[in-house]
Amino acid sequence: MVNMRLPAVPALAILSPSARIRRTAFSGMVEASGIKAYTSYNHMLLPTVFRGLEEDYTHLRTHVQVWDVACERQVEISGPDAFRLVQMMTPRDLSASADLRCYYVPLVDADGLVINDPIATRLSVDRWWLSIADSDVLLWAKGLAYGLKLDVMIDEPDVSPLAVQGPKADALIARVFSPEVTALKSFRAGWFDFQGRPLLIAKTGWSHQGGYEIYLDDSTLGPALWTALFEAGADLDVGPGCPNLIERIESGLISYGGDATFRHNPYEMGLGKYCHPDRVECIGRDALLKLAAAGPDRMIRGLRIETEKLAPCAGGWPLFAQQDGKQVPAGTVSAAARSPRLGPIGLAMIEKPWLEAGTRLTLATPDGMVPATVCLLPMSE
Amino acid sequence: MVNMRLPAVPALAILSPSARIRRTAFSGMVEASGIKAYTSYNHMLLPTVFRGLEEDYTHLRTHVQVWDVACERQVEISGPDAFRLVQMMTPRDLSASADLRCYYVPLVDADGLVINDPIATRLSVDRWWLSIADSDVLLWAKGLAYGLKLDVMIDEPDVSPLAVQGPKADALIARVFSPEVTALKSFRAGWFDFQGRPLLIAKTGWSHQGGYEIYLDDSTLGPALWTALFEAGADLDVGPGCPNLIERIESGLISYGGDATFRHNPYEMGLGKYCHPDRVECIGRDALLKLAAAGPDRMIRGLRIETEKLAPCAGGWPLFAQQDGKQVPAGTVSAAARSPRLGPIGLAMIEKPWLEAGTRLTLATPDGMVPATVCLLPMSE
Repeated sequence: MVNMRLPAVPALAILSPSARIRRTAFSGMVEASGIKAYTSYNHMLLPTVFRGLEEDYTHLRTHVQVWDVACERQVEISGPDAFRLVQMMTPRDLSASADLRCYYVPLVDADGLVINDPIATRLSVDRWWLSIADSDVLLWAKGLAYGLKLDVMIDEPDVSPLAVQGPKADALIARVFSPEVTALKSFRAGWFDFQGRPLLIAKTGWSHQGGYEIYLDDSTLGPALWTALFEAGADLDVGPGCPNLIERIESGLISYGGDATFRHNPYEMGLGKYCHPDRVECIGRDALLKLAAAGPDRMIRGLRIETEKLAPCAGGWPLFAQQDGKQVPAGTVSAAARSPRLGPIGLAMIEKPWLEAGTRLTLATPDGMVPATVCLLPMSE
Repeated sequence: MVNMRLPAVPALAILSPSARIRRTAFSGMVEASGIKAYTSYNHMLLPTVFRGLEEDYTHLRTHVQVWDVACERQVEISGPDAFRLVQMMTPRDLSASADLRCYYVPLVDADGLVINDPIATRLSVDRWWLSIADSDVLLWAKGLAYGLKLDVMIDEPDVSPLAVQGPKADALIARVFSPEVTALKSFRAGWFDFQGRPLLIAKTGWSHQGGYEIYLDDSTLGPALWTALFEAGADLDVGPGCPNLIERIESGLISYGGDATFRHNPYEMGLGKYCHPDRVECIGRDALLKLAAAGPDRMIRGLRIETEKLAPCAGGWPLFAQQDGKQVPAGTVSAAARSPRLGPIGLAMIEKPWLEAGTRLTLATPDGMVPATVCLLPMSE
């Protein structure tokens, strides 16, 4: 019987100032708003905590928040071969794509392994923005374009997404832009006026609480946009926020590079519904066809954790199952937090035999071994 | 007359634990040794401060330090086309390269812009390790290999560099490995036994104080290697350390992503001596030939800053010159620190008219405008 006590990780590491971890168009406003913690994402600062993880969570589910997600850098692919390159990069079938629509697109390499999972917005058929997770898609796209001699321009434009998330997002966005914005359906985008300048706004965002992402394409206007949202939303209890660890675990929003990496395929990430290797001539097609036929050996699932204490988690907590009277490896937890609604929860890559909701496992933590139960995502009460 | 006072950046931001910012083979030892601050580098933790920037600096120049630089991830390129791909990726002429030698190689894109500046170690002609700076060279190399249909394997192996740096590095490395290690010339490598396992050791390192980098190729041995070095070096005053901001500014060690980015070419970074586009068929050759002929419009230089206070610097401090009775932009500071020997110093990308050592400029800081003088790198007293 394995009885592990993992080493603890520091709850409060200090991050040194560095030009290599770029400040955003909104960093000054974020700091004036009382940010408590950061992470680094695409070589840029991303806020993680304002009042506290739990207070931020409750506020996000009740009111409306403004998020500095400028670190969702855009990789702009434009030119005559732009559509060809974008379609090569993802197994998602984009043949029926339309302008001003957004597509969640797993990007895979020649082995069918995931190198990023951006939202691709089609501005026109020959101009796309990939709003990327935390890896240098710019280099991947440039390498492909060079090797394949494609007629494309690939660059990171001066675009700083600012998200407006929460149940009162409609009210706030209507005041600062126009009530027409709230007519956008999910994963649709449009151009809307801000102080005489058209800005792209999409009905997307990294929470399940509803809202928008504003693609500010002039970083000098960061403070003006931030201020306009806060001034217009005072009576809506608008607050500063950020992608919230608790909310994203409950909602099953996978963080590429943490919950899944370049060692995983899209089926393991639960992204099979976005993969059409049977009808798309994409990179990694042969590998994906084989993977699709075999089915994944492991998948991401939610976890309800039975513990009084919950130590800070930087991933790597091993899960064990009982099999034939022995304790065997059953998966690995990549993120954990205490939800005010659901108690201690986590995300884990779980091996195939234990994928079913309700499966009882044992989790090694810095506070010793604790019971944990597999659940589906998004989590319900 | 411009009289700017820049917004201050926080000296002490908090970094949230996350699986996306990977812990290293040595993180537990580093934390037990009293680490005070981190940065993120190649999606991994990199220590930045132990006792204090100045104490670490003085200790590094006097004794010997062990550095967790596991974040210098290796991109292994192997197979029949390995040499062809590596030579395509850099303008440095590798035609006379030899096994177990290390080469500082700027990597450039089709426009001649720098995408990384690794040390490439030739293990054999068909097996190379690129010890990378902070960008996903793995994706760039994979994109090229796919597009060009090259017969190569590209992967990130389980290799965790641990550096031994400082004037007593020879004494320490000889005790833990063999006195033969100290016979290595600069930028040479060899295989040396550690507890029955051959480890690659190179005479390289990210300081000008001398030393070695040990390429530990089994992360489970991290604590054993760390402990062996500390036990053997007790009477040498061995201490935990890390790339030191003060020492690297004095030594002119450029940090890719901070001091220079994918918007800069190798000539601007002062890497012209490693560029041979006249005789190498590399990516970006035409662009580099033009850039070499025209000469750089700006270059990295050192800066002596005349100020009592020196605020934390995350880059972006503008420099101004007097020209025709007007104040005009002259460059941008990317890093600054207070040296116990030299006082306040910095690194800056300086525009062409002001490159000469001794040029007097004015620097905007969070404490107002201060005088600054251009100097060559490495800095001397």
